[in-house]
Amino acid sequence: MRAVQYLEVGRAPEVVEVPVPEPGPGELLLRVTAAGVCHSDLAVMGMPAEVLPFPLPLTLGHEGAGVVEAVGPGVESVSAGEAVLVYGPWGCGVCRECSLGLENYCARADELGIRPPGLGRPGALADYMLVDDARHVVPLGDLDPVQAVPLTDAGLTPYHVIRRSAERLYPGSTAVVIGVGGLGHVAVQLLRAVTGARVVALDVREESLELAKRVGAHHVLRSDEAAVEGVRELTGGAGAQAVFDFVGAQPTVELGARMLAKDADLDIVGIGGGALPVGFGSVPYGTSVRVTYWGGRSELLELVDLARQGAVGVHVERYPLERGPEVYERMKAGRIQGRAVVVPGG
Amino acid sequence: MRAVQYLEVGRAPEVVEVPVPEPGPGELLLRVTAAGVCHSDLAVMGMPAEVLPFPLPLTLGHEGAGVVEAVGPGVESVSAGEAVLVYGPWGCGVCRECSLGLENYCARADELGIRPPGLGRPGALADYMLVDDARHVVPLGDLDPVQAVPLTDAGLTPYHVIRRSAERLYPGSTAVVIGVGGLGHVAVQLLRAVTGARVVALDVREESLELAKRVGAHHVLRSDEAAVEGVRELTGGAGAQAVFDFVGAQPTVELGARMLAKDADLDIVGIGGGALPVGFGSVPYGTSVRVTYWGGRSELLELVDLARQGAVGVHVERYPLERGPEVYERMKAGRIQGRAVVVPGG
Amino acid sequence: MRAVQYLEVGRAPEVVEVPVPEPGPGELLLRVTAAGVCHSDLAVMGMPAEVLPFPLPLTLGHEGAGVVEAVGPGVESVSAGEAVLVYGPWGCGVCRECSLGLENYCARADELGIRPPGLGRPGALADYMLVDDARHVVPLGDLDPVQAVPLTDAGLTPYHVIRRSAERLYPGSTAVVIGVGGLGHVAVQLLRAVTGARVVALDVREESLELAKRVGAHHVLRSDEAAVEGVRELTGGAGAQAVFDFVGAQPTVELGARMLAKDADLDIVGIGGGALPVGFGSVPYGTSVRVTYWGGRSELLELVDLARQGAVGVHVERYPLERGPEVYERMKAGRIQGRAVVVPGG
Amino acid sequence: MRAVQYLEVGRAPEVVEVPVPEPGPGELLLRVTAAGVCHSDLAVMGMPAEVLPFPLPLTLGHEGAGVVEAVGPGVESVSAGEAVLVYGPWGCGVCRECSLGLENYCARADELGIRPPGLGRPGALADYMLVDDARHVVPLGDLDPVQAVPLTDAGLTPYHVIRRSAERLYPGSTAVVIGVGGLGHVAVQLLRAVTGARVVALDVREESLELAKRVGAHHVLRSDEAAVEGVRELTGGAGAQAVFDFVGAQPTVELGARMLAKDADLDIVGIGGGALPVGFGSVPYGTSVRVTYWGGRSELLELVDLARQGAVGVHVERYPLERGPEVYERMKAGRIQGRAVVVPGG
Repeated sequence: MRAVQYLEVGRAPEVVEVPVPEPGPGELLLRVTAAGVCHSDLAVMGMPAEVLPFPLPLTLGHEGAGVVEAVGPGVESVSAGEAVLVYGPWGCGVCRECSLGLENYCARADELGIRPPGLGRPGALADYMLVDDARHVVPLGDLDPVQAVPLTDAGLTPYHVIRRSAERLYPGSTAVVIGVGGLGHVAVQLLRAVTGARVVALDVREESLELAKRVGAHHVLRSDEAAVEGVRELTGGAGAQAVFDFVGAQPTVELGARMLAKDADLDIVGIGGGALPVGFGSVPYGTSVRVTYWGGRSELLELVDLARQGAVGVHVERYPLERGPEVYERMKAGRIQGRAVVVPGG
Repeated sequence: MRAVQYLEVGRAPEVVEVPVPEPGPGELLLRVTAAGVCHSDLAVMGMPAEVLPFPLPLTLGHEGAGVVEAVGPGVESVSAGEAVLVYGPWGCGVCRECSLGLENYCARADELGIRPPGLGRPGALADYMLVDDARHVVPLGDLDPVQAVPLTDAGLTPYHVIRRSAERLYPGSTAVVIGVGGLGHVAVQLLRAVTGARVVALDVREESLELAKRVGAHHVLRSDEAAVEGVRELTGGAGAQAVFDFVGAQPTVELGARMLAKDADLDIVGIGGGALPVGFGSVPYGTSVRVTYWGGRSELLELVDLARQGAVGVHVERYPLERGPEVYERMKAGRIQGRAVVVPGG
Repeated sequence: MRAVQYLEVGRAPEVVEVPVPEPGPGELLLRVTAAGVCHSDLAVMGMPAEVLPFPLPLTLGHEGAGVVEAVGPGVESVSAGEAVLVYGPWGCGVCRECSLGLENYCARADELGIRPPGLGRPGALADYMLVDDARHVVPLGDLDPVQAVPLTDAGLTPYHVIRRSAERLYPGSTAVVIGVGGLGHVAVQLLRAVTGARVVALDVREESLELAKRVGAHHVLRSDEAAVEGVRELTGGAGAQAVFDFVGAQPTVELGARMLAKDADLDIVGIGGGALPVGFGSVPYGTSVRVTYWGGRSELLELVDLARQGAVGVHVERYPLERGPEVYERMKAGRIQGRAVVVPGG
Repeated sequence: MRAVQYLEVGRAPEVVEVPVPEPGPGELLLRVTAAGVCHSDLAVMGMPAEVLPFPLPLTLGHEGAGVVEAVGPGVESVSAGEAVLVYGPWGCGVCRECSLGLENYCARADELGIRPPGLGRPGALADYMLVDDARHVVPLGDLDPVQAVPLTDAGLTPYHVIRRSAERLYPGSTAVVIGVGGLGHVAVQLLRAVTGARVVALDVREESLELAKRVGAHHVLRSDEAAVEGVRELTGGAGAQAVFDFVGAQPTVELGARMLAKDADLDIVGIGGGALPVGFGSVPYGTSVRVTYWGGRSELLELVDLARQGAVGVHVERYPLERGPEVYERMKAGRIQGRAVVVPGG
């Protein structure tokens, strides 16, 4: 079968031929129907060999959708022929966090060497992929896998952080979304779908602000100094109860901090390298500053249902598998609109 | 190996010889170190054939502790030699409730024919037992399995319901425990260990009230009409924020309802056949009346830690495996103090 | 000034002349801009003298909106000229429940003889009304008081119960609303506005089902035996995670109970006199059956914001104050569509 | 009457004669029975005139206990003769946060110029003090006011932050308390009283570690580099689910951050001027870093109950009112053990 692999540090990914794997006990083999391509792979491929957290070669792709082709011995809860999405942040399945479906915070994954597909285990950019356990897929039903596959990361990451801030997102509260890109434009939709908060979207790009409006933001503001005053005005001086920073650069985390109300959350989601100094005086009383990672399995189930209701949609560009390597090139060049999805079958 | 089996409806359980099972893919074989014997088995064995929810013969015992003897193919998170407790309310592992560790409320268990060990699958009253998945055990460490095994049901059931009522159990609140038997005397300890609530224990037996005091109840009252006034007095007229009824008979559920404060919980845990009519006028405003079942996997993890801290202990009587059938006889005759635990190795 | 008063038990309410009250220390005098007329007044006026919980004569109306005309000594947080809604379930302000804004469950209201306006204190069906404390109003801003006044009860009651069941109302869950009348049609809107649940509305009246669809129900079903099967089908057999019964009669509470999933909530809101027997076997495992009353002050704040966003609207019929007594007649005859609102100034 | 006042910036506080105030509408006059003296006053008295947030002279003391001497017009829920504690973080009483009893995060206090007693309004270091509203006291009952008065701040502040982290403090979790001084030694007791977490106390002073053990810490560690490894060892490598830093200096916030488990809370409570840079890589995934302030009114009610149960005690040194200025001197010199409490009547 074909697979888009990262073969050596510094080398561009390539399409290679590899054997179709066989599902061992407890495992599933999926025929991949769609694989999302994520910016964070570029960061990983930019790492020098000594910090790369897994051996090469590796099949890329941590957003996967597929149809169950075969199940290994002992699998009973999923059957061949079912359409599924892959829950990516694999954990040990038995620690407390995993017991609560929060495998993204598995206490033992590092120690046991468990890693997500596409980030250590062979990923979804291939004709077939293995999933190590039935609990790492969720039913997709008749949803279009190409439209749905970005939910597994570009959707799940903002959904997780919105759920974590649920208590702040009451009707009358204000939620600020900084950065209306792949994750941010999903965040706007999710905030509208599951909370009564007023949504204010910030970006430096005019077209992103327009996108934000189109997907439901109540207000949009250029992401600069004046936005602090803008949010204060919209909130009668109080500030925002939750700021979701999908950029995470130094200027944005600092900007976000200045918009906070008392007793509010600042969630740093984007991996832009910023770090906010948190202490008395630097943030209002009652502030929580959080750094989250991906999301929980039950949250992915919920997200699929929101997609089924039509409450969340991701703009995707479709590419055949052979063009996988090119997608990374285009992504580097900033030439992907929305999420690029690779479709092995077409 | 030896197993205590229920062979035919109406017949007393017997010790029989059966083959040692072999763990299939994903399964574990435990050498049983302790098996708790639960009153609810008597109820099951009292059912006529047409309502018995599983085929016979069946090895009894839904409270199990053991040492992993062997693991089937594909099991990686647990190894031979580990001491474990069995998490009993098995579910499908993939529905939303199971994703949150609440397999006790699995949405698909009925449909898929999944049943707990000792209540459909072969149970713990044997030299060895199979566990269908690594997530259905929790690490026991160096705790004594005989002391710890009742945690899996007699501990987990009250712990679950106490956690569900956590919001009501603030310092200054009052929790009433009706029935200081196997579960009730654990409930008193758990309430003291993880909440700041005042604990009032009710029972009709003098020795149970003394037990309640010994394990930490702030107040004890004879469980009768006067107890309603007693609780009102202790609470300045307000009533209790949570009532846990471990008897669940008609008189106790009605008694419990009359002790409630506004905005309170009544948890019916005992299977005494009572049913409280809930509507306007029958209970104070803000009342929730709940019927729960067993508990969640993360709760069992927590409970083991409480036992490790010495915060909870169950009074046990130890019996060798051969006396398993006799234990049921003694239980029926009301001649077991605390929890009977069968120890195959001794 | 004019006031619609209930003068003697059994006598129809009348418009009478009474003096304009003066605000004492801590009190507010409102010029009433709108007063909602609620069905539950009919129940109160149907009580014999010996159970009527307050002395007569009494100015009716527990849904009030107004403009602050004057404030008594010591009032600083509200000023003359402000438009406000009245938060009706007055409490002592100092007990724990009141500290959390849940004056609807005040522990001391009964003992201190504190009662809501229109249900013990003079109500809103008058040219002016007194409010005993600044915390018993919430800012209305430029919302139309006639449209907004039903939020204070017909809105707050369903909102409170929906918030209490928030944990069950995740995307992918199913919420059943039984009875699409004054409260039920608001509940449908609120469920859509603040949750990702699928909403199924039940009613026996065809036009109510059409109303339910218009305000956002995903599915509607005739409220009869077949609806149990209908809900099971819509949920793949699982049942509903939350049932809100706005009728509360014996047939509806029993119907609701049969639609429940495991680990679900049944909220009895309507005062139709039904009572559900709750015990093992009568409801699925994990069920909570609740009886709530009105709502919390912070919830009313949230609700006003939802109205400001256009997320909730109540169909109202407007009447001048003189026709207040007639409104009760029409209500008794079932001739009011939606909520009747009395407007003293017009 | 006598009052300990801060008269001019830079000048030591003095005992002066001032008139006994009269309670206006809604106000209470307390005869002070005890007033706690807090370190943070030294910080305030160290401020230059241009940043001091209130005018002088000011009667000091933001921890107050008293007996109601008289009530102003309109006060009904509290009567003369009642023993009370003063809830210090006064708010507007009508914003959303105040509606939830979280006046410590009042959205309008700054704008309305509302300040706590002893920090803007005349405080408790006097024979009598005014309280602006009945909701700003809580019943003390027959508790000793001298023992109880530190609960209002030295108790409430740690209790608030422990409640905020409640979800992390499950049995089997580990809570680290950095700094076992006035607040820290209360935190250890509160963690033991209302959670099942294992408590690890850190301090640089040997006698503080002994105090920590005496009041219930499971483990104590010298607060230095080796403590990071120490906490990792105690937790099987996982780290702590919650770190409460009651020092809040740069070294302690950084130390605390290195002890965190995934999905954990770091609460900066001490005003030691430290600030932790929070971003990807600086803290584990799932971390929340929080800065809180004082506590909620319902939390003070709960705390009084814990004191009544004997679950929390503060070591106090008792001084007559005349020695109030000296207390500040001794405090500056580090010569107060535990909490200094001024007792006007003795």
